[in-house]
Amino acid sequence: MAKKAFISEAVIKRLPRYHRLLGQLEAENVSRVSSYDLADRLNVTASQIRQDFSNFGEFGQQGHGYNVSKLRGEIASILGLDRPHDLIVVGYGNIGRALAGYSGFRDDNFFVRAVFDVDPARLRDLPEGVEGFTMDGLPAYAASRNVDIACVCVPRSAAFGVAAVLDGLGIGRIWNFAPVDLSGVSKDIVCVNINMSDSLFVLSYYADAARRDGPESLPE
Amino acid sequence: MAKKAFISEAVIKRLPRYHRLLGQLEAENVSRVSSYDLADRLNVTASQIRQDFSNFGEFGQQGHGYNVSKLRGEIASILGLDRPHDLIVVGYGNIGRALAGYSGFRDDNFFVRAVFDVDPARLRDLPEGVEGFTMDGLPAYAASRNVDIACVCVPRSAAFGVAAVLDGLGIGRIWNFAPVDLSGVSKDIVCVNINMSDSLFVLSYYADAARRDGPESLPE
Repeated sequence: MAKKAFISEAVIKRLPRYHRLLGQLEAENVSRVSSYDLADRLNVTASQIRQDFSNFGEFGQQGHGYNVSKLRGEIASILGLDRPHDLIVVGYGNIGRALAGYSGFRDDNFFVRAVFDVDPARLRDLPEGVEGFTMDGLPAYAASRNVDIACVCVPRSAAFGVAAVLDGLGIGRIWNFAPVDLSGVSKDIVCVNINMSDSLFVLSYYADAARRDGPESLPE
Repeated sequence: MAKKAFISEAVIKRLPRYHRLLGQLEAENVSRVSSYDLADRLNVTASQIRQDFSNFGEFGQQGHGYNVSKLRGEIASILGLDRPHDLIVVGYGNIGRALAGYSGFRDDNFFVRAVFDVDPARLRDLPEGVEGFTMDGLPAYAASRNVDIACVCVPRSAAFGVAAVLDGLGIGRIWNFAPVDLSGVSKDIVCVNINMSDSLFVLSYYADAARRDGPESLPE
């Protein structure tokens, strides 16, 4: 299967939505789907969908649409969802608890193995299978255990320090919930920042627009 | 100031990033900035930035760049950040607690006024200025108080029911943290879904790519 060497970030960012929709279609026992049906449900154009999928090879047959399960499996493989990932959570406040306690990630092969916090009093009521350590236990943990991704859930003031520690321990994949951009801490860091406010602002815009012009539906 | 009647969703979704960067520049006492500087820091093209801003009128002078404060103020106004918004949180688990307790939203004029949960035992340790009610108190609350946005933080199984209740009470602006799409519940609902897994999957892709090809930096 011919694959292009470089896949643009915009395409990669659309793959989770395709994966989610294909999962819904599988649950509805739909076995084949056309680019037009997908486009209709995702509020994008059919030609964009065909172009996106062409990055990864050929999943469709002219006039026959796509095989839902095969396509979903291929996208899962591209995103790495067919392999288990070991996660740690740094900062065990409300967001850290929500991440460690959310069982849905396991369905996609992401497993929170341990949580870390400066305050030992916070390390209570841990979900089953999750270990808790104070921050000074992080180097020993990293030396003996696999860590694929660190979820950074500390306050803004602590985020850069934590990112530097993680970088020093060779843990460069950061899912960042602190409201600062950590990408600049080190060239070895691959960081995805969750800026939750961004979507709140977009909602604010459309809420005001709805008051002005009547409701409009929003794609995801 | 001439403004286009229709602004595409892609442009709206970029505005929060512009707003955030301009805030950083203000904090650094930068008063003017060129589209090239902005483009460099945001990993987009300068022409896209100029095109985006042209939707809202003229903020720049040829060869002189943009006035940082004026541009940030105008984007804030477009997004509605210059007006206070009253929020409620429905579902007071870990995510609900994180939202109600995060003071950063107030800086942008979003105020969580009340939280609701089916379980009265959960309604403890409320942040200052936040009231707590059981779910059956929602109609009376909605009848007497302003609600601009409802943050839905209930489990997947309860989300559609909650959205229907909110719709029945005329609360149509939903910031949805439940892992289902609530847009289809009613035509009157303006819903922004937070699919946190999506960004985790994107990180997973780039983490695997980094292992294969060496690190690469990711724009937000």
